[in-house]
Amino acid sequence: MDGITMKLQADHLIMEALREDISGEDVTTNAVMKQAVTGEVELIAKQEGVVAGLAVFRRVFELLDPQTVTEFYVNDGDRVEKGLLMGKVRGDIRVLLSGERVALNYLQRMSGIATYTRKTADLLKGSGVKLLDTRKTTPNMRIFEKYAVRVGGGFNHRYNLSDGVLLKDNHINAAGGVKEAVRLAREYAPFVRRIEVETEDLDMVREALEAGADIIMLDNMSIEEMREAVNLIDGRAETECSGNVTADNIKELISTGVNYISSGALTHSAPILDISMKNLHAV
Amino acid sequence: MDGITMKLQADHLIMEALREDISGEDVTTNAVMKQAVTGEVELIAKQEGVVAGLAVFRRVFELLDPQTVTEFYVNDGDRVEKGLLMGKVRGDIRVLLSGERVALNYLQRMSGIATYTRKTADLLKGSGVKLLDTRKTTPNMRIFEKYAVRVGGGFNHRYNLSDGVLLKDNHINAAGGVKEAVRLAREYAPFVRRIEVETEDLDMVREALEAGADIIMLDNMSIEEMREAVNLIDGRAETECSGNVTADNIKELISTGVNYISSGALTHSAPILDISMKNLHAV
Amino acid sequence: MDGITMKLQADHLIMEALREDISGEDVTTNAVMKQAVTGEVELIAKQEGVVAGLAVFRRVFELLDPQTVTEFYVNDGDRVEKGLLMGKVRGDIRVLLSGERVALNYLQRMSGIATYTRKTADLLKGSGVKLLDTRKTTPNMRIFEKYAVRVGGGFNHRYNLSDGVLLKDNHINAAGGVKEAVRLAREYAPFVRRIEVETEDLDMVREALEAGADIIMLDNMSIEEMREAVNLIDGRAETECSGNVTADNIKELISTGVNYISSGALTHSAPILDISMKNLHAV
Amino acid sequence: MDGITMKLQADHLIMEALREDISGEDVTTNAVMKQAVTGEVELIAKQEGVVAGLAVFRRVFELLDPQTVTEFYVNDGDRVEKGLLMGKVRGDIRVLLSGERVALNYLQRMSGIATYTRKTADLLKGSGVKLLDTRKTTPNMRIFEKYAVRVGGGFNHRYNLSDGVLLKDNHINAAGGVKEAVRLAREYAPFVRRIEVETEDLDMVREALEAGADIIMLDNMSIEEMREAVNLIDGRAETECSGNVTADNIKELISTGVNYISSGALTHSAPILDISMKNLHAV
Amino acid sequence: MDGITMKLQADHLIMEALREDISGEDVTTNAVMKQAVTGEVELIAKQEGVVAGLAVFRRVFELLDPQTVTEFYVNDGDRVEKGLLMGKVRGDIRVLLSGERVALNYLQRMSGIATYTRKTADLLKGSGVKLLDTRKTTPNMRIFEKYAVRVGGGFNHRYNLSDGVLLKDNHINAAGGVKEAVRLAREYAPFVRRIEVETEDLDMVREALEAGADIIMLDNMSIEEMREAVNLIDGRAETECSGNVTADNIKELISTGVNYISSGALTHSAPILDISMKNLHAV
Amino acid sequence: MDGITMKLQADHLIMEALREDISGEDVTTNAVMKQAVTGEVELIAKQEGVVAGLAVFRRVFELLDPQTVTEFYVNDGDRVEKGLLMGKVRGDIRVLLSGERVALNYLQRMSGIATYTRKTADLLKGSGVKLLDTRKTTPNMRIFEKYAVRVGGGFNHRYNLSDGVLLKDNHINAAGGVKEAVRLAREYAPFVRRIEVETEDLDMVREALEAGADIIMLDNMSIEEMREAVNLIDGRAETECSGNVTADNIKELISTGVNYISSGALTHSAPILDISMKNLHAV
Repeated sequence: MDGITMKLQADHLIMEALREDISGEDVTTNAVMKQAVTGEVELIAKQEGVVAGLAVFRRVFELLDPQTVTEFYVNDGDRVEKGLLMGKVRGDIRVLLSGERVALNYLQRMSGIATYTRKTADLLKGSGVKLLDTRKTTPNMRIFEKYAVRVGGGFNHRYNLSDGVLLKDNHINAAGGVKEAVRLAREYAPFVRRIEVETEDLDMVREALEAGADIIMLDNMSIEEMREAVNLIDGRAETECSGNVTADNIKELISTGVNYISSGALTHSAPILDISMKNLHAV
Repeated sequence: MDGITMKLQADHLIMEALREDISGEDVTTNAVMKQAVTGEVELIAKQEGVVAGLAVFRRVFELLDPQTVTEFYVNDGDRVEKGLLMGKVRGDIRVLLSGERVALNYLQRMSGIATYTRKTADLLKGSGVKLLDTRKTTPNMRIFEKYAVRVGGGFNHRYNLSDGVLLKDNHINAAGGVKEAVRLAREYAPFVRRIEVETEDLDMVREALEAGADIIMLDNMSIEEMREAVNLIDGRAETECSGNVTADNIKELISTGVNYISSGALTHSAPILDISMKNLHAV
Repeated sequence: MDGITMKLQADHLIMEALREDISGEDVTTNAVMKQAVTGEVELIAKQEGVVAGLAVFRRVFELLDPQTVTEFYVNDGDRVEKGLLMGKVRGDIRVLLSGERVALNYLQRMSGIATYTRKTADLLKGSGVKLLDTRKTTPNMRIFEKYAVRVGGGFNHRYNLSDGVLLKDNHINAAGGVKEAVRLAREYAPFVRRIEVETEDLDMVREALEAGADIIMLDNMSIEEMREAVNLIDGRAETECSGNVTADNIKELISTGVNYISSGALTHSAPILDISMKNLHAV
Repeated sequence: MDGITMKLQADHLIMEALREDISGEDVTTNAVMKQAVTGEVELIAKQEGVVAGLAVFRRVFELLDPQTVTEFYVNDGDRVEKGLLMGKVRGDIRVLLSGERVALNYLQRMSGIATYTRKTADLLKGSGVKLLDTRKTTPNMRIFEKYAVRVGGGFNHRYNLSDGVLLKDNHINAAGGVKEAVRLAREYAPFVRRIEVETEDLDMVREALEAGADIIMLDNMSIEEMREAVNLIDGRAETECSGNVTADNIKELISTGVNYISSGALTHSAPILDISMKNLHAV
Repeated sequence: MDGITMKLQADHLIMEALREDISGEDVTTNAVMKQAVTGEVELIAKQEGVVAGLAVFRRVFELLDPQTVTEFYVNDGDRVEKGLLMGKVRGDIRVLLSGERVALNYLQRMSGIATYTRKTADLLKGSGVKLLDTRKTTPNMRIFEKYAVRVGGGFNHRYNLSDGVLLKDNHINAAGGVKEAVRLAREYAPFVRRIEVETEDLDMVREALEAGADIIMLDNMSIEEMREAVNLIDGRAETECSGNVTADNIKELISTGVNYISSGALTHSAPILDISMKNLHAV
Repeated sequence: MDGITMKLQADHLIMEALREDISGEDVTTNAVMKQAVTGEVELIAKQEGVVAGLAVFRRVFELLDPQTVTEFYVNDGDRVEKGLLMGKVRGDIRVLLSGERVALNYLQRMSGIATYTRKTADLLKGSGVKLLDTRKTTPNMRIFEKYAVRVGGGFNHRYNLSDGVLLKDNHINAAGGVKEAVRLAREYAPFVRRIEVETEDLDMVREALEAGADIIMLDNMSIEEMREAVNLIDGRAETECSGNVTADNIKELISTGVNYISSGALTHSAPILDISMKNLHAV
């Protein structure tokens, strides 16, 4: 994660998370450690997977104490084996103890998403079809989760409601038809945006195409319908199929010829990657 | 979730999550709907599970527009079947569309945790052993996730580093021994707290017991060791075993006689419960 | 301005502006008015122009006191004549006095921008060329100023650096050429965005076109060059000419065939529209 | 602008402005520049005028990255010619690109106000009459705009409603007369404040004088009336005339003998001073 | 305290204080009260004194739950006897219990200050000398404490460093003398402020007078010196004597002829007024 | 105060307090000091007492300017004599002047509490009875005031409503009896908390004991009753007596055999300790 995004978007969320975990003081640590003692602790993978969020992990300790030094032996996107020494954190032992949980909560979740995304993206390898995330992210975690998806080899769909246009049935009804909806969107939305239309059958696909949609989402369609839709569209718009990719359905999905497959599970249901801090000792 | 916690702790997190999803305006909705039209939408379970977070779901819409009215046909803690109509939201259609994703992101995640917790807690039924959560929660989601654990039938371990004392090996080393660590903690920490000590073998258990620990955590011990530890402690302190409960190991874990089993997976790896908003229409 | 944008984006900026003007209390008003007295005041145009920001004006008073009632006889986008009664505000006179300046500061500035934009947009009438704003807005006023541009008949370019891709020379150099820059952007940016490239001569235009740019900005080119560029592009990308439109150069600019003309002056140099609150009296 | 005001009042407004422009990440820059490369860029005046806000300009980059180094060859208050090299910024090119717009938006607007103020103040040179600003500032820009007025040679009227007493007709009516209003204000307001009364005719001037007003504002009076008012007051209170100063009316205004002339246009209608960042290159 | 100051300045401080007392949830109350039950509780004086802060007390409960209704039988500034029923609060019992402590913490402290101020102000009665507070207030309590001083019959000195000019020895040295310091202050500070100079002997008094100081503070002078200073000044400036007023020294202080006596003890050392909430019962 | 608590909890309160005192700029200082001049000032005790809050004092200046260097010759908890040189602050004189008041307001109040607590704790010396504080703290000062109590030799009762369970009569009534209340609390509250019950007579003491309360508060009981209660409890629960300790009643209170005595006066009515900054001079 780049430094500017960290400063402007991540820092205050990390601070908020630290205050969530230390609403007054770290009572245990303050009871037994009245003075600073410099220590070092190891960051170790406890499971195989893809790492994401190292800069966020480091930032947690820096925000507690700018003197803390973190060095990594892996990079975001690297695959780690169980037992691998991923890095070391050195600083006031009280800082290492007080920041550990929040730092790991971020790193484990982000790495869990990267790992799950990589596994899914690998199913699409060679097909030319791209894997997309959705807005089904954990509240106040989007900047971290969308980043983790990219690290895992996925691509980002729109970031939020303000930076992408996606006309769903209710929008289309309100406008009085696909054509009018697209026209209104093109007039209203900043012109740097492409217009996506969600369709549920071939008639809607046809309308969306005629209305000049840039992207057409094929929602709740059978494999057969999707194939027809892609033929119909014939490259005049990009196509997105919304739904989970599994080892079972993958070949069929690819065979429809869609450009993108989006999956909410990447962010809403990936289990964490187990990583721990071990062997804290004074130095 | 009670109204005071909502006002003081949840509201600003929900607002932050809404701003995350609408950093400027909802471009699509604003393009096609210039005027308020009252509509209604249904909340429908798409999977079987335990619901949690209904008040948070409602609050999302209220924060966007206090006129929005949400009624529920289920309560937090209820088991829902796939297809069940859980409630309805009525208000300005633009509000229903703009708030949908954030409201569902909260509800689905909280219900996922409640569902997973219920399944785990059921394994312990009748044993007298209680299921605990941990601090392995998603950053800025703790107030929601710990609540969902309770809804699912679990119990809360300490909320954060400020409201519970847990002496780990590094604390004990810093103090110069278990006895001294417990003494320092008892002197320093507000006297309404109980002192918990993490132990790794029977020697440490003995020391913790002599030092007067209120709760002794048995960490990384074999079933056999835990059984011995519980015998040794013999009711003079409460006992917590840290680790995942599965259908496989459950009987053995119970057989050790520990009072509590804590599990990080409840909050860090529960998949969401699939719930959706459907059939939006003007009224 | 719609209610959701107001709640999520405008309210806290308005509150901040109110605290800027009342850092402690309104000393003058509190010295002489110890009790609430209901009063009414008129909103009157002191200059001819286009009004924008009525909802923001109303919101200032509501945030000070939700009992305050504001009614308008005009709508955003309406042209007002000097002396026209635009609306009335009724409420606790202390609220009317304390909120007046901030409410007018917003309304006058937003109406000034709408007025200036309308005048400029009128020059383009019938030509099919659209008028765009830029990011040259007043800090912490963008949501208000971009709205005012739309009210005045202009269109919004990207809202900020996060929701639009515009490759300038430094980006292109860093990437190692236009082609590579476009490729990187298309891979990195959420796929709902179009890629715009800034060009300074016909060679760059050609490269941008080959690289598949969606929009090509013609920067610092002569009328003649722009005409050639538009011919070259021949509808394969949209074209934007950046610079001020004046009554003098307007015909030539239109004659080049560009699709968009962007102007920073709309937001950075429009004088305010003079509007005042008059005839406050108890009721 | 001094460092303490910057820390306490300006920093959070600048951060808010940066978040307004980068609500997620700088997509374009992040797409093409994955690593830090040190670069340098020049700050160049594109128009003749008076510069104000250099410390704010520098601060924008520092807040994004404390490593950024900015050096200036001019000072606030200096007159710059078109084409003058005003300074250089050196740092991570990504920081230079991402911060450019916000930094210039502040600098151009503040310099625009200083330039306009200087021009107006020059009209009063030698007369002993002082030029004042008003509260007609852009919301959330007051600390910057009032500073720019001083840089341009103007003087500040009260900062806001909390730090100055100005009794207008509604206050006077509420109190039951000028005399009573002044008495109430003197009793209520912190005693370090002077009391100003707004008057509309000679009778009110007389009353204000008898009531012991420290400053008397002559509002909406003809030149002739103002002259009489000043004679009447005869140094027993200071006098302020509210309204625009132009090259046309300046001599007459001065001839009335008032001490101060206040002008809202200084802050609400000054066009920006055109300044740009050019020649960015790696170093 | 007026509604606008409450909204703009007090509300967020009260919310912060509530979060300080309820960082997660009110565990005790939530454990035993799962449902809302309407109750009523009495506000009773447990000590004789002057009440201040009733609106703040009410606001605490309103911020937790807008349905809460508070009625008072006394007003700010009233003297209450021990045992007096001051008011009643009616609402959800959980709200009454959770808000009690913060509401009383404000009310008791503000009433303590009003009581102490009244006692001190009474010593000055009939003398024409006014009692002033200082900036020696509790951090983040100034808006409440300065209000309480007024309620108690005292007057406010400057609110803070931004709204009053007080030249102390270090300022004078930096300027190069009293005369130059006053000149610089008059030029720099908004013209609605009066200039106060702190003096330590008669020479400084003379200089301050010649420099045109509006107010002269007599610091650390003997009674005799103050008397001489007042004679010397002879009404050409107002005079403030800084120090505690006690029953013992009061007559002498008054006899010096100063206009104001300021006392830090009003806000920094007043004990609270004991007030409690009693007889909570369901209704 | 440790660095982590300072960063997470104190910093933003100190910043808020600084903004309370400098809502715009320090007008006086900015009028006379345009440039930084390095100076040094002494921190001197003007009264005998116990010092607390040195780190907070230092932090005020650091937050204004990280270059400021503060050195102390005493530590928190040390007794200081009148006239003692406690430390020195060196930095930009403008920073020393602008930060002085807020820094002293914190230090004087915290030291006042430590001094008052030490005096009270000394009365209990040798008795084995511990002195506790309460939640009767100044709003937004709790983290500072509870720390000062510890420095003075007192112990902290619960920090707030979220981290301790104290069942009062209303909670007990709502639950339907002491036994049920304790049961509900034990089930609901995180298991690291001990349960305290407030009792008003011997019957309630008996019930609390049977219900398994960990701590029993003896409220409003006579010395005789308390003695009986302690006998009855006989070490099966800890005992707290709530009320003021004075030199007069101290022996009797101790003679009852209670474990803890809590006193609200420690935080709500301690007068400040007089400390000042003197001899500022350029270096």
